[in-house]
Amino acid sequence: MKLLDGIYTRRSVRQFTEEPVSDEQVKEIIKAGMWAPSGLNNQPWRFAVVKSDEAREGLAGLTKYGKVIKGAPVSIAVFVDREAMYNDVKDHQSMGACLQNMLLAAHALGLGAVWLGEILNNAEKVRELIGLPETLELMAVIAIGHPARSDQKSSRKDMSEVLLKEI
Amino acid sequence: MKLLDGIYTRRSVRQFTEEPVSDEQVKEIIKAGMWAPSGLNNQPWRFAVVKSDEAREGLAGLTKYGKVIKGAPVSIAVFVDREAMYNDVKDHQSMGACLQNMLLAAHALGLGAVWLGEILNNAEKVRELIGLPETLELMAVIAIGHPARSDQKSSRKDMSEVLLKEI
Repeated sequence: MKLLDGIYTRRSVRQFTEEPVSDEQVKEIIKAGMWAPSGLNNQPWRFAVVKSDEAREGLAGLTKYGKVIKGAPVSIAVFVDREAMYNDVKDHQSMGACLQNMLLAAHALGLGAVWLGEILNNAEKVRELIGLPETLELMAVIAIGHPARSDQKSSRKDMSEVLLKEI
Repeated sequence: MKLLDGIYTRRSVRQFTEEPVSDEQVKEIIKAGMWAPSGLNNQPWRFAVVKSDEAREGLAGLTKYGKVIKGAPVSIAVFVDREAMYNDVKDHQSMGACLQNMLLAAHALGLGAVWLGEILNNAEKVRELIGLPETLELMAVIAIGHPARSDQKSSRKDMSEVLLKEI
């Protein structure tokens, strides 16, 4: 898949087939996230893979989008390590760059994925479920699987609404 | 350029040739940024293109990395629209996803780019220089040009340091 095509054709995928996602695919997606840029190259991202039936069930109970997590063969919970952070805004931006690389990588692998943010309402419970220390703060969960459909539509503003000045 | 290759071979490029960057290339980079995901699809990003000698000189004076900006034929200042925001952490993450798409697009176009964050120390002055309202907050500046060299090295942690759990 060509890079620009991938950026433009990526969609949030919320329905998946039962086909499993391989460990190699999960690692590739995490590797892509790791190659995001970060301020001072501090690489504040940390990952937890959630794939057992029990863990997916538990995670699904912590968001109103539980159906998406239950239907996905694997989810990756993405945390920021507070001890690695140096600037809240910049570190949160880096985490977004990391998450975007992961979504693009899933798409490049022929998989579908969705960035779940509502689950941050239960960030502490997710951390406890996974069994990670308090220094880690949940940033998002990405649900991943083989897309059950590919007719997702999306839209963006016209460029004239967001490109405000040329000086 | 293949998507995954692009993610892995992108580097911060800080030295550029004098070859100009076309308006089409600038628009493609902004379009890529616009296709980042955002919570509630709120698309909080706003862009300003800085390319005149005078404007680049002024922008360069607002960061200790002014040499990079002066050496780049074009820079894009990326703002978040506070009036479009709904959640600080999630909106800053979306801005990071947008910035990453822009860096990847520049790379796919054969250009080099660098995400400048230190200039946030003078965020208000950058906004005033460009002439944008107070509702816009600077998130980063991306300097863009044709790479003068391609031997940039970078490194990442071992995956075992960041993939903490599989449950």
